[in-house]
Amino acid sequence: MIKSYGGYFMHLDRTFAVLGGDLRQVDVANRLLARGERVHALLMEKNQLLAPALQQAGELRQVLQSCDVVILPLPLTTDEQTVNAPFSGKSLPLEECFRLLRPGAAVFAGKVSRRARELAERFQIHLNDYLEREELAVKNARVTAEGALAIALDELPIAMFQAHCLVTGHGRVAKELIRVLRGMGAPITVCARKYKDLAEIEMEGCQAAPISQLAQAARNADVIFNTVPAKLFGRACLTNLRPETLLIDLASRPGGVDLAAAGELGIHTIWALSLPGKCAPLTAGDIILQTVENCLEEEEL
Amino acid sequence: MIKSYGGYFMHLDRTFAVLGGDLRQVDVANRLLARGERVHALLMEKNQLLAPALQQAGELRQVLQSCDVVILPLPLTTDEQTVNAPFSGKSLPLEECFRLLRPGAAVFAGKVSRRARELAERFQIHLNDYLEREELAVKNARVTAEGALAIALDELPIAMFQAHCLVTGHGRVAKELIRVLRGMGAPITVCARKYKDLAEIEMEGCQAAPISQLAQAARNADVIFNTVPAKLFGRACLTNLRPETLLIDLASRPGGVDLAAAGELGIHTIWALSLPGKCAPLTAGDIILQTVENCLEEEEL
Amino acid sequence: MIKSYGGYFMHLDRTFAVLGGDLRQVDVANRLLARGERVHALLMEKNQLLAPALQQAGELRQVLQSCDVVILPLPLTTDEQTVNAPFSGKSLPLEECFRLLRPGAAVFAGKVSRRARELAERFQIHLNDYLEREELAVKNARVTAEGALAIALDELPIAMFQAHCLVTGHGRVAKELIRVLRGMGAPITVCARKYKDLAEIEMEGCQAAPISQLAQAARNADVIFNTVPAKLFGRACLTNLRPETLLIDLASRPGGVDLAAAGELGIHTIWALSLPGKCAPLTAGDIILQTVENCLEEEEL
Amino acid sequence: MIKSYGGYFMHLDRTFAVLGGDLRQVDVANRLLARGERVHALLMEKNQLLAPALQQAGELRQVLQSCDVVILPLPLTTDEQTVNAPFSGKSLPLEECFRLLRPGAAVFAGKVSRRARELAERFQIHLNDYLEREELAVKNARVTAEGALAIALDELPIAMFQAHCLVTGHGRVAKELIRVLRGMGAPITVCARKYKDLAEIEMEGCQAAPISQLAQAARNADVIFNTVPAKLFGRACLTNLRPETLLIDLASRPGGVDLAAAGELGIHTIWALSLPGKCAPLTAGDIILQTVENCLEEEEL
Repeated sequence: MIKSYGGYFMHLDRTFAVLGGDLRQVDVANRLLARGERVHALLMEKNQLLAPALQQAGELRQVLQSCDVVILPLPLTTDEQTVNAPFSGKSLPLEECFRLLRPGAAVFAGKVSRRARELAERFQIHLNDYLEREELAVKNARVTAEGALAIALDELPIAMFQAHCLVTGHGRVAKELIRVLRGMGAPITVCARKYKDLAEIEMEGCQAAPISQLAQAARNADVIFNTVPAKLFGRACLTNLRPETLLIDLASRPGGVDLAAAGELGIHTIWALSLPGKCAPLTAGDIILQTVENCLEEEEL
Repeated sequence: MIKSYGGYFMHLDRTFAVLGGDLRQVDVANRLLARGERVHALLMEKNQLLAPALQQAGELRQVLQSCDVVILPLPLTTDEQTVNAPFSGKSLPLEECFRLLRPGAAVFAGKVSRRARELAERFQIHLNDYLEREELAVKNARVTAEGALAIALDELPIAMFQAHCLVTGHGRVAKELIRVLRGMGAPITVCARKYKDLAEIEMEGCQAAPISQLAQAARNADVIFNTVPAKLFGRACLTNLRPETLLIDLASRPGGVDLAAAGELGIHTIWALSLPGKCAPLTAGDIILQTVENCLEEEEL
Repeated sequence: MIKSYGGYFMHLDRTFAVLGGDLRQVDVANRLLARGERVHALLMEKNQLLAPALQQAGELRQVLQSCDVVILPLPLTTDEQTVNAPFSGKSLPLEECFRLLRPGAAVFAGKVSRRARELAERFQIHLNDYLEREELAVKNARVTAEGALAIALDELPIAMFQAHCLVTGHGRVAKELIRVLRGMGAPITVCARKYKDLAEIEMEGCQAAPISQLAQAARNADVIFNTVPAKLFGRACLTNLRPETLLIDLASRPGGVDLAAAGELGIHTIWALSLPGKCAPLTAGDIILQTVENCLEEEEL
Repeated sequence: MIKSYGGYFMHLDRTFAVLGGDLRQVDVANRLLARGERVHALLMEKNQLLAPALQQAGELRQVLQSCDVVILPLPLTTDEQTVNAPFSGKSLPLEECFRLLRPGAAVFAGKVSRRARELAERFQIHLNDYLEREELAVKNARVTAEGALAIALDELPIAMFQAHCLVTGHGRVAKELIRVLRGMGAPITVCARKYKDLAEIEMEGCQAAPISQLAQAARNADVIFNTVPAKLFGRACLTNLRPETLLIDLASRPGGVDLAAAGELGIHTIWALSLPGKCAPLTAGDIILQTVENCLEEEEL
């Protein structure tokens, strides 16, 4: 393991396994290899971006038993039965995976369900969920913001520097969106509830609007970025929009827009989920690896 | 005509004709209508974004003879024979157009060829080429920069905030690109020849590289934006690039990249021309109309 | 009272008293007057910026008994006995002030000591401390950041665009400092403890340094802005600094610098406290008034 | 001489002399020493920031005769007779200086008067005036902008983030001012004549005002930065200002403000000349040295 903050590097003699997942996991494996680590990439043999040196993985059972650090995918599983492995022809049941892991190995995974966590614990495995780490959330928020900007650039027939943007909410994604939209020179209104957030929004160079003024702010917007996971954009609010307004919903399930109503009213709506993995998988992989490193470093301290 | 700078509006009793062209011209016509001007939209009857009130154009001959301000498309013609009119089923020869125009009308067009200009002059028509106006060039450069960013966001598997960008040249498009990329937090190197430009580049918060260091700067880049209309990226320079580098050529014909060599070497290259009309046609229309207004205002002074 | 967010104004028929304090209180009184409120300015008769219409204050007893909203200064008192009133020739004991206030009046003050709070409660007066409100803290942090920049601009013999800045801590003041220093184009390193903060610092376009690298980061800095209220800059750390480094301590008492050691070592150190009231008193007044308004609005809801 | 662009260094075996001037020249000498050059510092013996190794200068006559590169001060002379040397007890007539210089030496000076140039030419000396170089002007403009911001921060009783700024003109200093003020989050209006400049101003995120709207824009401003060397701010315009407006004149002689009228009207006016040398002498020295290097490099090519 190389510790990378600030330029002091230290090799700890560890063996890594990176299992399953999408391009992010491929990237994690490639980065470890590039840093000179001993690393095995498993259950991703069909991906062509995997470094040649990683394409001949060892035998699964043997690898898992010997590894010190195991990085499982995000999400860990999509069926609650097997390790999520879209780039593999093989299937690995979670239970078998946990049984094979060496006791004492540091095991990481993303978006771990309660059921999977309980299963792992039966085998004395503690799953560190990197998706719950704040530093990952901060950086993923930026990648999400970039993905949202890309959608706006692709869909809007006007330039961003003159597009009136409305951002709802003032959490991590909203803050990074503000940064990115400000960089484009766009006029931005941000709608939030708390006075503290309204003050911060002003300091960020935006127009602050209390939630009571959402309808009016939405009506003036050329593009709306919703980050609030509550149905702010129900039929009433949607009816009020100008027909050319673009509505980008970044809220996780169940989302913030009444999609049926939006469809009927002809409001161009895009519900954009999981942008980091889609828009910038290599950066998303980088972020996961940094987060895993941070966790390992904390354990050592 | 409404004069719009600074909020003082003045209606001058004029009649406008907007002829042919793409969505930009539709937008010009719609904006004039929205401002309360008397306006006729001709040779764009198939475009569905044309305001309903403009869909019943008058008889061409009559309209042209009566109009005070005539706005022709960009480009004026694609065949040197007829007015460029992709949204129309009709065809209007340039010669007929010029013959019909009222003497003394103010006539505007974009990218006027020498032949078209001479033809117009035979009919005592002076064609004001709005594409040659600096204020249009400045704003179009920004729209181009946004379009280039959109391409990078769509194509790169890494996020912009960590994408090493190289911009070649330091003209209008380069300066707007720098602004937009800075807003994304990207690390930027800009390659230019003159010491003055290198100093400005530093003041813009970028790494300045003299042209002698182009090869090295290019090798370090994740994405290259070329704005220089000279073959900077010939086979030698291309061979030196890392295979994952994205090369976006914004230089007008003949472009700055040896496309054949890039293809052979597997360098992902996008030659992006005429971005304003493609990426943000309504802003491009707005810019054209503002420029026409400026010209009219100058004539009155 | 005028409610001002978003342009909807509503007059509520209230009478205000603004008592004592420095230029900030003068500004609060002037602003209320300018908005058409009924307002009395007391215990600030010597300040020449007080609006003429406010210079003839009514009789103190009568005014206090009749007012609906009373705004006391920041700090409320400097001697625990009387209302802080540097611009007045009169002296008003806290006890008398509280006795005179009308029951049911909304009373605001800044930096209320426990003793003053208890005294007030004996008279059934609840003191709302506006200094504890987050929206005030957010905006004051920005004014503090501007004041710190002013010090750096005045003291450094190099320009900010090439001054290596080190910011310690990542609280409100640090975040606003980063914004302001970024705007100057300065290269910035920020030192913090938590991984979450280190991630945010990177997203803010700065170099993130874990606290373990403080000494090295400090050695490279041309100017250090300390925001951490702990003795980070003891003799050991100070000895390590280059002699030309400027050290600006923004931490509240007891401060973050061993001033005796700094003096001996010849490190140019400025301990800058209470910058908002000193650098931008009219903005500081504006912020106080907005905060009072927010409190009043919350009570009404 | 070290060539510094882009990290390739090359020592050319040259001897430098730095003569007279203020802290900028001291800095030039110190920097040359720090790079390992052979350098003599003359006529600045009283300045305490001069590196110890430079404090024992050789005998003037001998040094001048032996040097390959001679850097004279900015301004070269203040009396048209002697080399400007405020940090020296000695006096060196220009004529003697030119007579002593080795034929073929590269000689640099700042703000060379016609008379001094002619005198030098009589001795076959060509004076390269670094003040006329564009790259120096670009960077000095930024330092000037920082100095102007420092004045505004020190003088205004409101914070910059809410100070309405008016910038007149759109040359180098204005552009750098815009950059710096934007970084503070200030609302900015810029007044210019040409449509091209008005378009650029909009792209820079500011409100563009044609010169015809100067009076109105000035009336709305909390602080005005004049960069136009013409009497824009005569009595008529000054009468129109609000009394609390701060007027910072950055225009070189004869300046842009009727100072007598401003005094009578009580408009707080600061005519700020030669800011780089005053506010950031070490950066100003750095800029001079870089410019001299560029000139030397050009000669070699």
